[in-house]
Amino acid sequence: MQIRNVGVVSPGDMGQAISGRLKEAGLNVYTALDGRSERTQALARAAGLTDCGSMEQLVSTCELVLSVINPGAALTVARQVAAAMKKTGRKAAFADLNAVSPQTARDADRMIREAGGLFIDGGIIGPPPRSEKDKPRLYVSGPDAYLMEQIVHPNLLVRVMSERIGDASGVKMCYAAMTKGTTALAVELLVAARKLGVEQALEKELRESRNDVFDWQMKNIATMPPKAYRWVPEMQEIAKTFGELGLTRRIFEGATDIYGMVAETALGKESPEQARKAGRTGLDVTRGLADGK
Amino acid sequence: MQIRNVGVVSPGDMGQAISGRLKEAGLNVYTALDGRSERTQALARAAGLTDCGSMEQLVSTCELVLSVINPGAALTVARQVAAAMKKTGRKAAFADLNAVSPQTARDADRMIREAGGLFIDGGIIGPPPRSEKDKPRLYVSGPDAYLMEQIVHPNLLVRVMSERIGDASGVKMCYAAMTKGTTALAVELLVAARKLGVEQALEKELRESRNDVFDWQMKNIATMPPKAYRWVPEMQEIAKTFGELGLTRRIFEGATDIYGMVAETALGKESPEQARKAGRTGLDVTRGLADGK
Repeated sequence: MQIRNVGVVSPGDMGQAISGRLKEAGLNVYTALDGRSERTQALARAAGLTDCGSMEQLVSTCELVLSVINPGAALTVARQVAAAMKKTGRKAAFADLNAVSPQTARDADRMIREAGGLFIDGGIIGPPPRSEKDKPRLYVSGPDAYLMEQIVHPNLLVRVMSERIGDASGVKMCYAAMTKGTTALAVELLVAARKLGVEQALEKELRESRNDVFDWQMKNIATMPPKAYRWVPEMQEIAKTFGELGLTRRIFEGATDIYGMVAETALGKESPEQARKAGRTGLDVTRGLADGK
Repeated sequence: MQIRNVGVVSPGDMGQAISGRLKEAGLNVYTALDGRSERTQALARAAGLTDCGSMEQLVSTCELVLSVINPGAALTVARQVAAAMKKTGRKAAFADLNAVSPQTARDADRMIREAGGLFIDGGIIGPPPRSEKDKPRLYVSGPDAYLMEQIVHPNLLVRVMSERIGDASGVKMCYAAMTKGTTALAVELLVAARKLGVEQALEKELRESRNDVFDWQMKNIATMPPKAYRWVPEMQEIAKTFGELGLTRRIFEGATDIYGMVAETALGKESPEQARKAGRTGLDVTRGLADGK
């Protein structure tokens, strides 16, 4: 199947940046904005996406639909796309690129196949591709994952893993466990250090003994608060993934607690655009959290 | 008070290495081996420590007693030392250098002061000082912490923090949360990746995108299994510290689960000496754990 027309649901922070690269790769990019937030509508306009309005219209127009959304909404989107495929009789390919567990990916696969569509399991590793430096990797797997090789762009690298649904989600879960799990842990201990009155001694010790790791954590924490609400369902998917393997869920249940706590603060309620403008350091963020801001 | 004679309870992996540096610093170093394991007795002999036999004899001989032990045994040791001080009427200084919560340090402080002794809160950051490269920091706090400044050695750095009991333990808890918490998390996700059949893709991605952090984690995991049983109570003390501040305990309860799981494996039952001899990499360890070895 030749892919010319790609749908993106929905063009939020990551989806919008990816849509831009898809257009540069020579593809026509569409979305369905019926019922979406004003911010998402503005991001879609800024990216120059064509609005199909409804999901039915989107699956009728596109050979490939990409789901890039809050992982808590991944199955809802898959269900909507499956319903639209059934209603229109259109047999498009649907790639779930969200941070969900292999089991959630298999659940989405079943819905899409039952509707007659092709399902591709996927996961995005790396930042939204806004500048030339950003080169996110799209890991994909499943019997139809090869279709994604038609996306060719130097700042959007497609990596076909295997023919097995779940592999792409699995690698994403483990990678996100490392990065976002470590960030949650670092937030907790830096907040604790400030509450205990030993923040400066700890920072000095961390800078002396593990400056590279500390710098990495600070960089991650600086931009985290506006994403915290999305990372709650992502941590829940990781807890689910590891729990199903017989490993402890509690590290990631705790990370869920941390991101849930951050999401409720003033910092957590900013938009990514507001947070970028404020230009806080990681320590500015953890101090704000410790001091109840 | 001038310090010439120092007692070390007990000279295990860390205690033995510190005892060697104390001797090089010109101090007389004693221990009390009644009821200790054969391995600890052998380590004490190798370090050339003088055995006082009982705790009573140890507090009678030394101006300063250092507690360096499994954190789960810290309060037991403080209680024994307090009893020995009461019995002998000796008012020595006692430094708890274990990885315990500020509250546990305050509990030990109360026992020692009630027995007429001086209490110093402490925490050791860094590896056992065996080679010239190892320069662990002894963080100490409390009204009598300045006494520790009499320990002068280029490979055993004393850092007096404040006059407040709990500050040294607080900085140690937060630092250990970072290092040992991240190690637990990395172990879990690497074991998961192998069980999911995506280990190689994950390793490749981690090496490409965060090689410095991955190398650090691999180094930590390589030497971890023989210490896992001691890190169980250490993670519990961290969970307690953070819980008392109103922060989630679950990340560190999960880390406790991981180290408890590792401690029960064949790798976890090796001695540090056996593990050093085997010379495994971090991936050798996580593969062994995933494959049920």
